[in-house]
Amino acid sequence: MSSIFTKIVNGEIPCYKIAEDENYFAFLDINPNAKGHTLCIPKVEVDKIFDLEEEVYLGLMQFSRKVAKAIEKTVPCNRIAISVIGIEVPHAHVHLIPLNTMEDIRFQKKVTLNNEEFEKLAEAIRANF
Amino acid sequence: MSSIFTKIVNGEIPCYKIAEDENYFAFLDINPNAKGHTLCIPKVEVDKIFDLEEEVYLGLMQFSRKVAKAIEKTVPCNRIAISVIGIEVPHAHVHLIPLNTMEDIRFQKKVTLNNEEFEKLAEAIRANF
Repeated sequence: MSSIFTKIVNGEIPCYKIAEDENYFAFLDINPNAKGHTLCIPKVEVDKIFDLEEEVYLGLMQFSRKVAKAIEKTVPCNRIAISVIGIEVPHAHVHLIPLNTMEDIRFQKKVTLNNEEFEKLAEAIRANF
Repeated sequence: MSSIFTKIVNGEIPCYKIAEDENYFAFLDINPNAKGHTLCIPKVEVDKIFDLEEEVYLGLMQFSRKVAKAIEKTVPCNRIAISVIGIEVPHAHVHLIPLNTMEDIRFQKKVTLNNEEFEKLAEAIRANF
């Protein structure tokens, strides 16, 4: 069965898309730690990031850097943090999180945005990509 | 003034070294979230990871992957998590953290090891590098 992220890539589950190329896909986390929290994934479905082939892994990190720079241009923050955990969804994903305090990377405090706010935010980040 | 990490690279501050090449350096975090928690840094002193030149950034992520695989072979865990925050030390660094639960990436729960335990652990990870 496809992972929830593969369903997002395939358009079976809607998302606030940020960027896509042949091998990678980025979209807003809908339960964000901070406004602008984005997930970057490889289209290939592999659970653990370090189990990706080296070339695919490096491509994912390269893609994530481009996305991070677009988020940083869009969302006021101290910097963009990276977090790769992967306990919940068995499809490797890079969290890019606009960071101001340590609370932003603890996955405890969450922020709420409505549909219109998510749409506008995704559009603004896409424009800076 | 040199960052605390540059002083570690230069041997001015001792560390439990894991790996080193021309451009990168890895050592055990002495206030670890979990046993095996390691920091990977570029020797060049740049505060924010996404401000590194792309080639240096990708080299750091490639180096970190090799270190992660050595940690994973050494320390029982579900997987190796990645965290890049950078609020405390203005010298880009990748946290590699043996992960079992979300608590391991929150930087709240800490584990204590004595000097001998750190030495043995570093030696074991180096042997798998």
